[in-house]
Amino acid sequence: MTDSLAAPAPTVGKSGVPTHWYNIVGDLEVAPPPHLHPGTREPLTADDLAPLFASGLIEQELSTETDIEIPEPVREVYAGYRTTPLFRARSFEKALGTPARIYVKYEGVSPVGSHKVNSAVAQAYYNSLDGVTKLTTETGAGQWGSALSFACAKFGIDLEVWQVRASYESKPYRRFLIETYGGTVHSSPSELTEAGRAVLAEQPDTPGSLGIAVSEAVEVAVKDPAARYTLGSVLNHVVLHQTVIGLEAVEQLRDAGEPQADVVFGCAGGGSNLAGLAFPFLREVLHDRAKTRVVAVEPAACPSITKGEYRYDHGDIAGLTPLLKMHTLGQDFIPDPIHAGGLRYHGMAPLLSHTVELGLVNAQAVAQTEAFAAAVLFARNEGIVPAPESSHAIAAAAKYARSLSEPEVIVIGLSGHGQLDLPAYHSYLSGELDQA
Amino acid sequence: MTDSLAAPAPTVGKSGVPTHWYNIVGDLEVAPPPHLHPGTREPLTADDLAPLFASGLIEQELSTETDIEIPEPVREVYAGYRTTPLFRARSFEKALGTPARIYVKYEGVSPVGSHKVNSAVAQAYYNSLDGVTKLTTETGAGQWGSALSFACAKFGIDLEVWQVRASYESKPYRRFLIETYGGTVHSSPSELTEAGRAVLAEQPDTPGSLGIAVSEAVEVAVKDPAARYTLGSVLNHVVLHQTVIGLEAVEQLRDAGEPQADVVFGCAGGGSNLAGLAFPFLREVLHDRAKTRVVAVEPAACPSITKGEYRYDHGDIAGLTPLLKMHTLGQDFIPDPIHAGGLRYHGMAPLLSHTVELGLVNAQAVAQTEAFAAAVLFARNEGIVPAPESSHAIAAAAKYARSLSEPEVIVIGLSGHGQLDLPAYHSYLSGELDQA
Repeated sequence: MTDSLAAPAPTVGKSGVPTHWYNIVGDLEVAPPPHLHPGTREPLTADDLAPLFASGLIEQELSTETDIEIPEPVREVYAGYRTTPLFRARSFEKALGTPARIYVKYEGVSPVGSHKVNSAVAQAYYNSLDGVTKLTTETGAGQWGSALSFACAKFGIDLEVWQVRASYESKPYRRFLIETYGGTVHSSPSELTEAGRAVLAEQPDTPGSLGIAVSEAVEVAVKDPAARYTLGSVLNHVVLHQTVIGLEAVEQLRDAGEPQADVVFGCAGGGSNLAGLAFPFLREVLHDRAKTRVVAVEPAACPSITKGEYRYDHGDIAGLTPLLKMHTLGQDFIPDPIHAGGLRYHGMAPLLSHTVELGLVNAQAVAQTEAFAAAVLFARNEGIVPAPESSHAIAAAAKYARSLSEPEVIVIGLSGHGQLDLPAYHSYLSGELDQA
Repeated sequence: MTDSLAAPAPTVGKSGVPTHWYNIVGDLEVAPPPHLHPGTREPLTADDLAPLFASGLIEQELSTETDIEIPEPVREVYAGYRTTPLFRARSFEKALGTPARIYVKYEGVSPVGSHKVNSAVAQAYYNSLDGVTKLTTETGAGQWGSALSFACAKFGIDLEVWQVRASYESKPYRRFLIETYGGTVHSSPSELTEAGRAVLAEQPDTPGSLGIAVSEAVEVAVKDPAARYTLGSVLNHVVLHQTVIGLEAVEQLRDAGEPQADVVFGCAGGGSNLAGLAFPFLREVLHDRAKTRVVAVEPAACPSITKGEYRYDHGDIAGLTPLLKMHTLGQDFIPDPIHAGGLRYHGMAPLLSHTVELGLVNAQAVAQTEAFAAAVLFARNEGIVPAPESSHAIAAAAKYARSLSEPEVIVIGLSGHGQLDLPAYHSYLSGELDQA
């Protein structure tokens, strides 16, 4: 950490919505390893990224500034649903029989029902500044696709989404949501791209994969000068945008009379949700104002941190993306089809991986049925049906809370609601889920 | 109105959550016509209602007090999601090209996604006070059933829900929601009741109806001394509970720098949503502090106020309920199967009907496709996908806003989100909906 940051700039405005995002890179004594060019293996430059991303996002991806101002048009959209609630889950505490005080930071009140919109709005905005008229992206269950579709509607940008075929066919609600906001959804693999046609020629019945969908979205963006590609997690600029979650939570916790959190739990798939919640708490730690511990909770079916290696790897199966230094299960790892689709990613955000290596973040893996058991207990006590992803954080926090004999302050990141995942709850309650 | 009410008791607490519900009966110079006993046609007494409802709810049903305290345990649950947002829909205003300032009171942030939980929590609480261990109810699309299931989980009461068979089979998400909270759902007609068996014997393939489901739920409640029946709209005590919406909105509007609303729009099916939003605004009118107009928006397929008669009628098809003086299309009216299932009710809350007769509330009917068109425009600008019910209010408000040449302050009641109704949006966007 640097001296100039001893008194950080105010980042929560009068209205409670932060005025700046928080970039942890500026507070770390050891810089994170750079992304590498997939061909030369040299550190990536802004020029290397220009065909893929908007210039404002590339600047953020490579930035070492600690406080990055949130542009007014983005803050205006944020103001429509932020600040999101931080509430004390007293009923859940009682059900657990814990002396802990459990606070829940809830992103499910966002228009699309999850935290994804925090970055989608920023990405659409910076692309609109560059005159980009079309964005492409991939989506699995559809959380990211629907968030970006809303954001594109706000900034007048066309959107094409490649959705993994298995989800496209079996879970149509989020596809309908993308369409309601005006986006176009293709089942992936599609006949629209070389990558898609190649897969279909060999495996006409493939259920698809996120890796294939990335290749399709990237291919279309790169071929069209007016188009750019977007990603919903993993990269530094996405992590940056999600820090609005933690910036609010730190202040809200103080407003609730708690000077600091003892432990912060969040689910981690690509890592932007956990990092967005936790990095502002880690700022307090890095500036010796708190002793907060952070726990990244992953699914047992896709344990990037707890069972993966920390090394350079590609972000996609086809190897089109830059090389990222991260905890990874390997670019060709295909996790079991658990219901927490948003956690089925082989790697982990490089920035989050770096903080794990620095000892600032610990990780745990939770089985799917354990996550649902905790989620049902939470729903019956607090009313909110958590997204299956978020349920992993609830399960880990619940287990920890039950183990305590002295009061501690626990913060759980509840990244979204699970109303579009109710068939998964039905399967769990019917005893149909494996111990995955 | 009476002199003693010139300075009404404070009803919004420090936290912003009201401490009292508002009963408009106490402020009206002309008392509403009483409910009548279905056999004797004499005014209904508390004893007549005792086999069906909890004593605290019966007291409220017949009360003429203006301010009724919200019990602490109910306020605690309210505090988990209230106050709900009142936000200025600037982007929607711009899209409409209107000089109006449009404020939206949004109940979709409640744990179950709609306003229904405001009354469900109160009903479960008062039943728990009486030692009731089981509640029964009917539900159509499932908004009310899921809200009551959550409330029963909070107060340790078993719940059996009879859901209209057509919804039970075609729209399973809300059924899964009811089950996730712990409630039991039966497809209606069922083999569990005399009423159900009688229908099945004659029409084994019936899609069911709300009227049949009411009969089943009432039959089971009346036969079990430890059980009571509950209703999600229409009755005075349900309207009373929903006034938390309007009490907050009046204060929030003032906080936003608007001394009064010019027009309030809300959708009206059974009437509790509209009345809950509008009656606190009407209190301002009745005390000469504002000149707010109120518009009840109904579906063209079920126009109780705009095309019905104002007379005594039963609340159900079988004629088991008390006679209520209300706007009605007749107890045997079966509306077209529009997607706004919550508005498919033949009658209108007696208290709301009474305020219509007094000239305090006007009504309009809106076609389904007009409602969806407005809802899609709203979603693309404000992010929230409105429930099909709420979309009717948005459509009427949008039409009015577009007609203005001078600024006015419009308040729209957005009773819930439509994430579980996305197939209906898909049908609309695919051009599959009739002009119903």
